[in-house]
Amino acid sequence: MPLDSPKDPKIAEKAALDPENFALANAIRALSIDAVNAANSGHPGAPMGMADAAAVLFGKHMKFDAKNPDWPDRDRFVLSNGHASMLLYSVLYLTGYEDMTLDQIKNFRQWGSITAGHPEYGHAKGIEATTGPLGQGIGMAVGMALAERRLAAEFGDDVVDHHTYVMLGDGCLEEGIGQEAASLAGHLGLGKLIVLYDDNSITIDGPTSVSFSEDVPGRFRAMGWHVQSCDGHDGKALDAAITAAKAETSKPSLIAMKTIIGFGSPNKAGSYAVHGSPLGKDEAALAKEALGWTGPEFEIPAELLAKWRAIGVRGEDEFHAWEKRLAAKPADQREELDRRLARRLPADYDAVVKAARDKLFADPKKAATRKASQMALEPLTAALPEMIGGSADLTGSNLTRVPAVDTQYTRDEPGRYIGYGVREFGMSAAMNGISLHGGFIPYGGTFLVFSDYARNAIRLSALMGLGTIYVMTHDSIGLGEDGPTHQPIEHLASLRAIPNLTVLRPADTVETLEAWDIAIRNRHVPSLLALSRQDVPQLRLEASDENMTAKGAYVIRQFGTGRDVTLIATGTEVALAVEAAEALHADGLNVAVVSMPSWELFDAQPEAYRKETLGDAPRIAVEAAGKFGWTRYVASEDDVIGMNGFGASAPIDRLYKEFGITKDAIVAHAKKLTGK
Amino acid sequence: MPLDSPKDPKIAEKAALDPENFALANAIRALSIDAVNAANSGHPGAPMGMADAAAVLFGKHMKFDAKNPDWPDRDRFVLSNGHASMLLYSVLYLTGYEDMTLDQIKNFRQWGSITAGHPEYGHAKGIEATTGPLGQGIGMAVGMALAERRLAAEFGDDVVDHHTYVMLGDGCLEEGIGQEAASLAGHLGLGKLIVLYDDNSITIDGPTSVSFSEDVPGRFRAMGWHVQSCDGHDGKALDAAITAAKAETSKPSLIAMKTIIGFGSPNKAGSYAVHGSPLGKDEAALAKEALGWTGPEFEIPAELLAKWRAIGVRGEDEFHAWEKRLAAKPADQREELDRRLARRLPADYDAVVKAARDKLFADPKKAATRKASQMALEPLTAALPEMIGGSADLTGSNLTRVPAVDTQYTRDEPGRYIGYGVREFGMSAAMNGISLHGGFIPYGGTFLVFSDYARNAIRLSALMGLGTIYVMTHDSIGLGEDGPTHQPIEHLASLRAIPNLTVLRPADTVETLEAWDIAIRNRHVPSLLALSRQDVPQLRLEASDENMTAKGAYVIRQFGTGRDVTLIATGTEVALAVEAAEALHADGLNVAVVSMPSWELFDAQPEAYRKETLGDAPRIAVEAAGKFGWTRYVASEDDVIGMNGFGASAPIDRLYKEFGITKDAIVAHAKKLTGK
Repeated sequence: MPLDSPKDPKIAEKAALDPENFALANAIRALSIDAVNAANSGHPGAPMGMADAAAVLFGKHMKFDAKNPDWPDRDRFVLSNGHASMLLYSVLYLTGYEDMTLDQIKNFRQWGSITAGHPEYGHAKGIEATTGPLGQGIGMAVGMALAERRLAAEFGDDVVDHHTYVMLGDGCLEEGIGQEAASLAGHLGLGKLIVLYDDNSITIDGPTSVSFSEDVPGRFRAMGWHVQSCDGHDGKALDAAITAAKAETSKPSLIAMKTIIGFGSPNKAGSYAVHGSPLGKDEAALAKEALGWTGPEFEIPAELLAKWRAIGVRGEDEFHAWEKRLAAKPADQREELDRRLARRLPADYDAVVKAARDKLFADPKKAATRKASQMALEPLTAALPEMIGGSADLTGSNLTRVPAVDTQYTRDEPGRYIGYGVREFGMSAAMNGISLHGGFIPYGGTFLVFSDYARNAIRLSALMGLGTIYVMTHDSIGLGEDGPTHQPIEHLASLRAIPNLTVLRPADTVETLEAWDIAIRNRHVPSLLALSRQDVPQLRLEASDENMTAKGAYVIRQFGTGRDVTLIATGTEVALAVEAAEALHADGLNVAVVSMPSWELFDAQPEAYRKETLGDAPRIAVEAAGKFGWTRYVASEDDVIGMNGFGASAPIDRLYKEFGITKDAIVAHAKKLTGK
Repeated sequence: MPLDSPKDPKIAEKAALDPENFALANAIRALSIDAVNAANSGHPGAPMGMADAAAVLFGKHMKFDAKNPDWPDRDRFVLSNGHASMLLYSVLYLTGYEDMTLDQIKNFRQWGSITAGHPEYGHAKGIEATTGPLGQGIGMAVGMALAERRLAAEFGDDVVDHHTYVMLGDGCLEEGIGQEAASLAGHLGLGKLIVLYDDNSITIDGPTSVSFSEDVPGRFRAMGWHVQSCDGHDGKALDAAITAAKAETSKPSLIAMKTIIGFGSPNKAGSYAVHGSPLGKDEAALAKEALGWTGPEFEIPAELLAKWRAIGVRGEDEFHAWEKRLAAKPADQREELDRRLARRLPADYDAVVKAARDKLFADPKKAATRKASQMALEPLTAALPEMIGGSADLTGSNLTRVPAVDTQYTRDEPGRYIGYGVREFGMSAAMNGISLHGGFIPYGGTFLVFSDYARNAIRLSALMGLGTIYVMTHDSIGLGEDGPTHQPIEHLASLRAIPNLTVLRPADTVETLEAWDIAIRNRHVPSLLALSRQDVPQLRLEASDENMTAKGAYVIRQFGTGRDVTLIATGTEVALAVEAAEALHADGLNVAVVSMPSWELFDAQPEAYRKETLGDAPRIAVEAAGKFGWTRYVASEDDVIGMNGFGASAPIDRLYKEFGITKDAIVAHAKKLTGK
């Protein structure tokens, strides 16, 4: 079926190994060449090198139905080396995904197109994850495989039984996050995770020998993986390797495919020159000739396109059979699965939250907000079987493990609590993968300071619009003796700076429950809870059903009538502000204390509410963190009682005193500001 | 020499393997137990488990002289599992480091002491790096070993010839950064790097089997390491293993020591309960009894202390021999080494900078600031042999490789350019290690968006006060088609929020040279250069020797007399602000344009200068990034022409237009603000 014989004898030799697959792959190569040339920007090398593998994978193995792209039990495909995006777009167009039109391919990397430089989740069906930041694709795929296994255990493998396929390159394996993900997958024996490694010996800086000389198969074996090697341009060998990978169900599989980057380009194949630059018109023509490809740009010969379109509906029967199996399930199971996949909360959810609130008002507690989080998690996880917990090896500190999730996720039993290990980035990427898969609300803990390690995964949660929940405890110098390496200073500011992320720093047990409620309801915005190590009194004592935290900020205490000064505080410092306000009021000042658990939620309130809450009086902010950013609400950083530099190692009380985050300091500054 | 026989027969069995070493180790264990108990906070388990190894390492192998702790050719010791800090403090006290007094040990984790919860670089001699954030210790050690090899090649192994030893635990190996570091070390064959792995099968969440089940030796072998396993409580076996590790000079060495966490504690040894909590008085007594340790708290029997003190001066002769060899060197070599180690710039440095400046004024260039950086690097690296470059596999994009450093650092030849691979975090930690080692000014590149991956290493640069230089290109939506995953939005704000980091976003070729000059002179503050992909005109045209960038901000253009409005911009947006100012002036407004390459430097200026520069007129900020933080200088985020969310994939001009970062938008807002 190749339209023409490859002109290059070496290519002809490869083509002869599986001519049909070679022809299918050529369609991917041709589209990739043309689109990158048209955009005059992009990465042709990887799509050209991995095209044969993609043709085998989609042609013979992937369970999918291009006409029913939302089929929950479809196989997942994650292009971890996202710069190879044209490979994915080509396949989606060729197999007939409705939204991936030829026009979109022609508009690769243009404003308003769904064919962005790197695959963007939500732009088109069939893009299962936003990839490009290397190593995170495999991290998310691990999460998908984790989710699949548990969902199958809950609802039966007659309706949940699919693979997660990943393509990745050297970059994903050089990145630490890629290693964290692979290590976790090996540990948990995720047998339905199959990784195709584009071993092309080329990175941007030249041959991989510049920086990477590992025995990759050996390393993966040491991490408990099933490992094979094969020629990445031999369709039959690839087919056999994928078949064998599927047969091994107790271990994740790595297929190291020896490939030539830019396969087909006479002058650039095998060189880093083809990694991230268009071939150009002349080389494109030469490459097509070498590959035996004829015809105008962007045009796929009808016969070949028909072949691809047939692949696109190859899964149709399987899809309908799945629908029947689902229909045959008892109604309650069907409805529950539907609810879970649709990310709807159960009918009794509101009542559960209300009961938890009432309990707090009936029996107020002084508690660290991490402890308050544990208290909140108890009823919430009991009510929401979709919540799946975990920690990056700080369970006892994060207090993320509560009775309802007290079953360990092991290689034998997919429980509701995941020991992610000391892998904050891997945890966060995996949680994104769990979110993407559907059926679950993942939450995971670490210390706030180590949000640094996970930062780009938090960013991807926000960029993709996923409701991943980050539980970040030990949220200030209040962690005490562990010292400056463990004390977050700039972290609240740096997280607030991320678009589309809700940062919540609750002040007491009530606000912590409210924060959890917000995080759980927010299925399309990630939430990050910053929680304290140290105890705080319960400040909210008057029973009410209104989630005040959802307003972002509100007057939690008013001393006197009107305001001489407004104290704005977050988290553990709200209680301190209240103490200072009491002292100021005793000295004759009228003071409002504003608790501000979330800047993002507050800024989303109507202007009138914001003005009323902040008031016209001079304002002081109190937060045991860096002052950066507070000028959004106060006149100057001089009006912030906070940290000017890094912390120190000492008991908590001493630290607050030495760093001047005290009642006296607030009182003194308020008096100075107001002249009273 | 044990003062008493261990009461526990299993311990007695271990002690009998090397009684003298066991006694030395007991001193570490006793001090660690007492200090953690006194602080009622800390991690006794790891020091107790690794004490035998530490006794062997310091007792028989480490080249050091406690009386001359700054000896440049001392072996380096990095405690990568920094929570085991009491192990290090104990050894420093026992060997007689002057500043590590018994009082300091007694004040473990207290305000003002040098014995912080985790080892803090600069607190005491013998603390070679700040550790605690897991995995970064080994990352920095890789940098130290890299530096040692190159410095030896430059100055001779008669004066530079030392090992770098690391102790680490499972956590460091679970972290991706630990894997990046190990992979790079294996690739470069850093034979003088020797890692002692505390394989105690315990993490905070319980047995490592919860989350970690790799064949660690197999994995390290696959990464090109020399690997041994031994009993971590057998002094003789440890001695033999370290001896063998030193003998293997072509590969880094891993010694997997099977240890018992909390070794000696009858009720807690081998359990996660001893990881991060004090033993308590009773268990401490039982542990000491089991170990055969008698006497009051914090007291080391005189004979044993004398043994330790003798170890402390074991290296004295070697130190003096080294001094003699150094003295025998030709004066120019000696002086140059001295200069390099003292972090002094060469005498002709100022002239080199001036010549580069003059060239720019003589022949102004339109260039991307990354290109301007390359232009600056050419003379600077030629003048400064201590500059050692690199990139996380983005050399051609970062433009970090210039003729003077155009020699690859390989396993055979320690050149001046390091291919760090796609390992941003590993690169950054290694650069910190190079800085710590001394003799070099490391700089390394990646895309600004991937500062996320390296973030906690950047933080550690700042916390330690190291002059590491980060070259972060593609610093805005100006990178265009790669799209939102590659476009930094919140990154400038999040980096500006880090204390003690100088963020520089230069506007043109002159400011870029000035930024480099600042970064190079700043040997105790890290610098981060945010550089553009796209061209900008040279705005600074009038020859001058004054480094205006060092002021942080300055009036770069004044249109008319006085000000109706002030436009503050950074980097590529300064030229845009100038265009807008021209248009506004044509419409009759008086406008000052302030270029603000560095907030930190500006805020360090005298108040009068700051007031004068910012002026009293309404202000508008222009920066193609998130608006967070700009309220430090403008009245409201409404007055920032910047980004409100993530970017998109499209050609650059389209992006600026669609996101409203245009001359017209600035003009319109200025008119609205001024009512003119």
